[in-house]
Amino acid sequence: MIASNTLFETECSYEEAKIIIFGAPFDSTTSYRPGTRFASRTMRAESYGLEYYSPGQGVDLSEVKFHDAGDLTLSFGDVNQTLADIETFANKIFSDNKFPIMIGGEHLLTLATVKAAHKNFDDLAIIHFDAHADLREEYLGVKLSHATVMHRIFDILGDNSIFQFGIRSGDKLEFEFAKKHTYLNLFDFEGLDETIEKLKGRHVYLTVDLDVLDPSVFPGTGTPEAGGVSFVELMKAAFKVFDGCNVVSFDLMELSPPYDPSGISTATALKLLREFLIRLS
Amino acid sequence: MIASNTLFETECSYEEAKIIIFGAPFDSTTSYRPGTRFASRTMRAESYGLEYYSPGQGVDLSEVKFHDAGDLTLSFGDVNQTLADIETFANKIFSDNKFPIMIGGEHLLTLATVKAAHKNFDDLAIIHFDAHADLREEYLGVKLSHATVMHRIFDILGDNSIFQFGIRSGDKLEFEFAKKHTYLNLFDFEGLDETIEKLKGRHVYLTVDLDVLDPSVFPGTGTPEAGGVSFVELMKAAFKVFDGCNVVSFDLMELSPPYDPSGISTATALKLLREFLIRLS
Amino acid sequence: MIASNTLFETECSYEEAKIIIFGAPFDSTTSYRPGTRFASRTMRAESYGLEYYSPGQGVDLSEVKFHDAGDLTLSFGDVNQTLADIETFANKIFSDNKFPIMIGGEHLLTLATVKAAHKNFDDLAIIHFDAHADLREEYLGVKLSHATVMHRIFDILGDNSIFQFGIRSGDKLEFEFAKKHTYLNLFDFEGLDETIEKLKGRHVYLTVDLDVLDPSVFPGTGTPEAGGVSFVELMKAAFKVFDGCNVVSFDLMELSPPYDPSGISTATALKLLREFLIRLS
Amino acid sequence: MIASNTLFETECSYEEAKIIIFGAPFDSTTSYRPGTRFASRTMRAESYGLEYYSPGQGVDLSEVKFHDAGDLTLSFGDVNQTLADIETFANKIFSDNKFPIMIGGEHLLTLATVKAAHKNFDDLAIIHFDAHADLREEYLGVKLSHATVMHRIFDILGDNSIFQFGIRSGDKLEFEFAKKHTYLNLFDFEGLDETIEKLKGRHVYLTVDLDVLDPSVFPGTGTPEAGGVSFVELMKAAFKVFDGCNVVSFDLMELSPPYDPSGISTATALKLLREFLIRLS
Amino acid sequence: MIASNTLFETECSYEEAKIIIFGAPFDSTTSYRPGTRFASRTMRAESYGLEYYSPGQGVDLSEVKFHDAGDLTLSFGDVNQTLADIETFANKIFSDNKFPIMIGGEHLLTLATVKAAHKNFDDLAIIHFDAHADLREEYLGVKLSHATVMHRIFDILGDNSIFQFGIRSGDKLEFEFAKKHTYLNLFDFEGLDETIEKLKGRHVYLTVDLDVLDPSVFPGTGTPEAGGVSFVELMKAAFKVFDGCNVVSFDLMELSPPYDPSGISTATALKLLREFLIRLS
Amino acid sequence: MIASNTLFETECSYEEAKIIIFGAPFDSTTSYRPGTRFASRTMRAESYGLEYYSPGQGVDLSEVKFHDAGDLTLSFGDVNQTLADIETFANKIFSDNKFPIMIGGEHLLTLATVKAAHKNFDDLAIIHFDAHADLREEYLGVKLSHATVMHRIFDILGDNSIFQFGIRSGDKLEFEFAKKHTYLNLFDFEGLDETIEKLKGRHVYLTVDLDVLDPSVFPGTGTPEAGGVSFVELMKAAFKVFDGCNVVSFDLMELSPPYDPSGISTATALKLLREFLIRLS
Repeated sequence: MIASNTLFETECSYEEAKIIIFGAPFDSTTSYRPGTRFASRTMRAESYGLEYYSPGQGVDLSEVKFHDAGDLTLSFGDVNQTLADIETFANKIFSDNKFPIMIGGEHLLTLATVKAAHKNFDDLAIIHFDAHADLREEYLGVKLSHATVMHRIFDILGDNSIFQFGIRSGDKLEFEFAKKHTYLNLFDFEGLDETIEKLKGRHVYLTVDLDVLDPSVFPGTGTPEAGGVSFVELMKAAFKVFDGCNVVSFDLMELSPPYDPSGISTATALKLLREFLIRLS
Repeated sequence: MIASNTLFETECSYEEAKIIIFGAPFDSTTSYRPGTRFASRTMRAESYGLEYYSPGQGVDLSEVKFHDAGDLTLSFGDVNQTLADIETFANKIFSDNKFPIMIGGEHLLTLATVKAAHKNFDDLAIIHFDAHADLREEYLGVKLSHATVMHRIFDILGDNSIFQFGIRSGDKLEFEFAKKHTYLNLFDFEGLDETIEKLKGRHVYLTVDLDVLDPSVFPGTGTPEAGGVSFVELMKAAFKVFDGCNVVSFDLMELSPPYDPSGISTATALKLLREFLIRLS
Repeated sequence: MIASNTLFETECSYEEAKIIIFGAPFDSTTSYRPGTRFASRTMRAESYGLEYYSPGQGVDLSEVKFHDAGDLTLSFGDVNQTLADIETFANKIFSDNKFPIMIGGEHLLTLATVKAAHKNFDDLAIIHFDAHADLREEYLGVKLSHATVMHRIFDILGDNSIFQFGIRSGDKLEFEFAKKHTYLNLFDFEGLDETIEKLKGRHVYLTVDLDVLDPSVFPGTGTPEAGGVSFVELMKAAFKVFDGCNVVSFDLMELSPPYDPSGISTATALKLLREFLIRLS
Repeated sequence: MIASNTLFETECSYEEAKIIIFGAPFDSTTSYRPGTRFASRTMRAESYGLEYYSPGQGVDLSEVKFHDAGDLTLSFGDVNQTLADIETFANKIFSDNKFPIMIGGEHLLTLATVKAAHKNFDDLAIIHFDAHADLREEYLGVKLSHATVMHRIFDILGDNSIFQFGIRSGDKLEFEFAKKHTYLNLFDFEGLDETIEKLKGRHVYLTVDLDVLDPSVFPGTGTPEAGGVSFVELMKAAFKVFDGCNVVSFDLMELSPPYDPSGISTATALKLLREFLIRLS
Repeated sequence: MIASNTLFETECSYEEAKIIIFGAPFDSTTSYRPGTRFASRTMRAESYGLEYYSPGQGVDLSEVKFHDAGDLTLSFGDVNQTLADIETFANKIFSDNKFPIMIGGEHLLTLATVKAAHKNFDDLAIIHFDAHADLREEYLGVKLSHATVMHRIFDILGDNSIFQFGIRSGDKLEFEFAKKHTYLNLFDFEGLDETIEKLKGRHVYLTVDLDVLDPSVFPGTGTPEAGGVSFVELMKAAFKVFDGCNVVSFDLMELSPPYDPSGISTATALKLLREFLIRLS
Repeated sequence: MIASNTLFETECSYEEAKIIIFGAPFDSTTSYRPGTRFASRTMRAESYGLEYYSPGQGVDLSEVKFHDAGDLTLSFGDVNQTLADIETFANKIFSDNKFPIMIGGEHLLTLATVKAAHKNFDDLAIIHFDAHADLREEYLGVKLSHATVMHRIFDILGDNSIFQFGIRSGDKLEFEFAKKHTYLNLFDFEGLDETIEKLKGRHVYLTVDLDVLDPSVFPGTGTPEAGGVSFVELMKAAFKVFDGCNVVSFDLMELSPPYDPSGISTATALKLLREFLIRLS
């Protein structure tokens, strides 16, 4: 018998699947420690090591119709082309009335999927779990950067559309910007219930920068920030979003396997993905 | 002065010791990430780095009479022979009215020590701390596997004899099997007091798959599962068992040094062993 | 564009290919340092990082018709079943008049492919490049072991059929056995020309234990042996075999990625595979 | 533009700074796992990866006047000379009415800075956060050792001057010594408020052995001890000391980068340093 | 005494130095394994571990007047800006009649320094030591890439100006291009003497991609290629160039510390730099 | 069966053995990268992975009478005490008419064994294989240092007694000192035959700093120096010494397991030890 190379060994085709997962292996603007380009292929390779059944939810992944589309081939060194290629790909998934899940890659890539989502759902709001505010106007002289992505998304969605949780890092200007233009909750998920209430009736994109987790739980990321949330807190917060909002897409960003020598970060990302897939179904 | 190569530099002989520790370096059925074969020798090599006094219990290891028997030489590639050799060794320790402690190796090896214990104590019950239920009927076509060990033990001990705590992984059939044939508590140690109460009068074997610990605390294991218990929770749960049950043997399984680059998992396993040795005495 | 997950991104189907590559991720009898189970998937994952054109031979891999069949799912803990499954798979490839290439896994697995080859070519001879003689009668009480594989193959093929090169490790009995039953050349490839001459008219299986290479060149293996051959020496020796013999299959065994932190061993294995594929075509 | 090589890229000179940070790269008496000699240069190299603004305190490091004096060149193999050199350097900083911060290095080095502090402030008391009591009279036959440092400091300061928190390791004699001569609180920061109250009017030196943190949070240290405090607990305890005591100096000791493959320990040490610098100002 | 943080602890100022070394930490177009961004700071940090005297040449580095200008701050994610900033910096050094040495970073950056050199020396020729031809017209849809750099340089310098040695990787088109437009010697330094002869009277830039070395000698690079040259061969070839040509600048590119866990690649790069600095003086 | 923990599982007692091996785990004066303290225990732990038979010499280790005395317990932080303890231990072995073999540890420790040898053999000469001259008068202000050991030995033995080979590193003064007081051959073993001839009639101590090997072959050492000798060259040179001189002791120094992630350096050191033990017998 030949082992399947797909995520969780899924053999569901694009056509029969409602959910489409794809990898976006790109980290060209990462200024500190690169490596998120390896996230999707590492998760794919390690996914057979995780049980496919969720004892907490009482459901097996085999009951969820999801397709693993593989990794996009992206243009290292050309950020604009890379974002355009991802946007095109995500847009096609939305156009087919499916639910795209992007595995990053650096957080900048969320700009592409949000653009695609916004094209399809013009009332789109973003729920953003992250250690970093990512609200810079520019970073190292660059407008399209992992550190500016939420500002760029603001440029598209405008006020009352960005809701940030778990944030514990950023410069002064970012927090001043947040005060004016986003909802930003420091350190944890307080205020999430109210946010969900407020977003009733709108379409929602959930972006998860996995460094929102405490580095003890998730060391494998480029810019670890002490003082983060636990695995269970993140899982429950996401469950609230999935249960209470009209979520049209989510992403899992910033796993960096080179900084995860024991593999616990990849295992944790996979477990979150399993739980989220089951919750969605 | 020559440094001792034994665990915690013990120089206690087999004869004078009440407690006999041995290593079982075998992981042939481990299908995902091997390495637990290195656990006992790594623990032995690193044990001099730990203080031998327990400030919590106020006792020094030098007051405990334990012998380090070293590592068994096992037949890689021959599971039956390996299990037979361990059973013989453990049986001899029981026959000498001593208390065996096995340092794994993969969890399947517990089948051998439990067999030996059952031969000596026919009312034996098992308390099982683990992230995984290990209740499969077979795994990858194999009946003797790390993933089936508790099912094989059930084949010997039958109903009302297996009490599982901390479990957070397994397939659907395992949880259905557990509902019928074992006591299984998800995620934590709830129900342990009642279990201890129920086991009054019986002999008890405590098997600890160290992956019951959260991966942040114990990354060095083959199949890390997010959402586990803390070091203090595990220590206290084991203390309850040692204090409240007639424990005849325990084991510490599934430390995998290759996935523990910082050494914190080995250090934690050693600290647990120190605390358990002192508690037993 | 979606990146291909196959070896060298080949998209050639089984049907149109003359050459079929498959991974055999198994190392249960490895008694010292495990990890060869990860070889095929690591090679597959890293193969896009190598240029597909051979400047030495002036040919591009795209001109070679080979299929990547993926990895077999093998029964960890059941050696007999594992060997049977590989033999069945290899036998089917031979039956289809194709050329199988196995990526190990531990060297014992060569027993399965040689059995399949022998079933199809009854005049089969083996050319064996390795640091270790692998001629033990048994090892740790086990007859089917990485350390006994050439003895087991001798049991099938008999005298005048095994030709060993690069050997620099083994016990006394193995070298005595070799004197009687195999051609064994210590340290290097001396005598290879004569061997090739002698094998004219017979079918030949080439088994390459990559630890024949010097550990400086190929650190990523379970039992590194100082004093080995260079990359160019191995490549040229294999070219001689491909050019001068009627080779029906070859394998590349014993790459162990956990012991290859810089990745140079995987890169070297891939380059050898590229060069061999082109040479065969 | 040329990147600055200093801690947090500070360009503040010795003259204009109130706070002087220096590295003390020495670990010659570390008997178990060396590596703290690399702490200061690793922190310096990685410090640009941390945001300089503290969202919790609402202040940016640029508002704090601190100078990075670089690393001392110390005499490996000559403990007395090393301590003398550090004491001289720290003494000069005190003499200039500045606030020295030492980045260790092994904990023994605190003896040198405390000596310098004591020379300048004869009512000095020590607050000591650590997993280890460090109260041995001698260790491996040596009086000047990482394991004896608090005993040596007691030799200088005498009774009622040492206040220890978070301690969870030591031998029996150390805890007996503590009962007579220091305030020692096991495991956590209980009693810190009372200590601070008691120290009103005295000058205080705060020494932080970073292994007071739980190994999950801070794996990168020579002797990890399970059961430690969290990042937030440590930060808040230190804030209490800075807010409530007349602190004249502090140190951050025992970060060991070789045991921190993911970099989370270095990142955590830097974040603590940032928070402490801001709190002091 | 405070340790110097500069390369080889040089304290020579820009003004008094003839030779100016700077780091260019950028690898945004690296499509396979990133990490060369860490080369210059790792070399700087480790340089104190190397003896400063060359027994082969009988000269000490202290006799060479070189300045360490530190690392440039570059715009991750903006290739054009990055190249412009490097060109400006190199151009200033040339304008000051000094000799720039760039420590990469990815090989694309050589385009910037060559541009600066060409502006100052219009008869410029390039001697290129590398495993890879780097002659692609474009790569992954990108014109400015590590894989296209020699093509881009050809666009500037034209025919009879590029001399490549040690090349053992590239696609078919690159080798066809080389046949027409460059001198390319496969595998080793054959033909170097003739090249040097031919270049008499012209200014020469020497670019060294350190992966020209065999991976056994230099594992720490993104795309290791088996079959490379030895340390002594590279050193002697460079000495020939320095002795026989009018060299105006050189660079050392593609050291990637994350793939150099033992540190031998960094040590080798530093030793080459020491030898080259002494040879130049 | 219980596995033996000794080197190569020897069970030969001190009394019956002619050769006594002991570990000296100390590296307190190592100023750059520590870790040689782990050499002897790592070699002991890994020695079962090496074949005990030498195909080159045709002899099995079981035919050699050697005892593994284990590791000395040494005083980290007290160099004088450490040297005294080693000298005492070695002296006892010489007094018992046995042959001591020390496994380092840092090279300074050779001073202790040479002192013991000199006490027993007053015509002693040293043959020294090393990358570094180790002839400094003092280092970092310290007289007893890994970098001064051969100078200290010269202080004892005087002129015409030190013969150095493979040297490729040192400062100017060391080479000037060597010109006057030692025989020093740069880079390789040229002149070894003449040295052996000259030493006829004298007792000889052979000290092997394993960094004489090329870093490609032996990365696991604190100060790797490119351009070293090969494994076979070192083995053959040592064989010459053993065959031609009256060797009374030898040592193997400076293996540093933390810089040997693939384990090839430990494996190489063990193979050298096996070959040397057999050659001696």
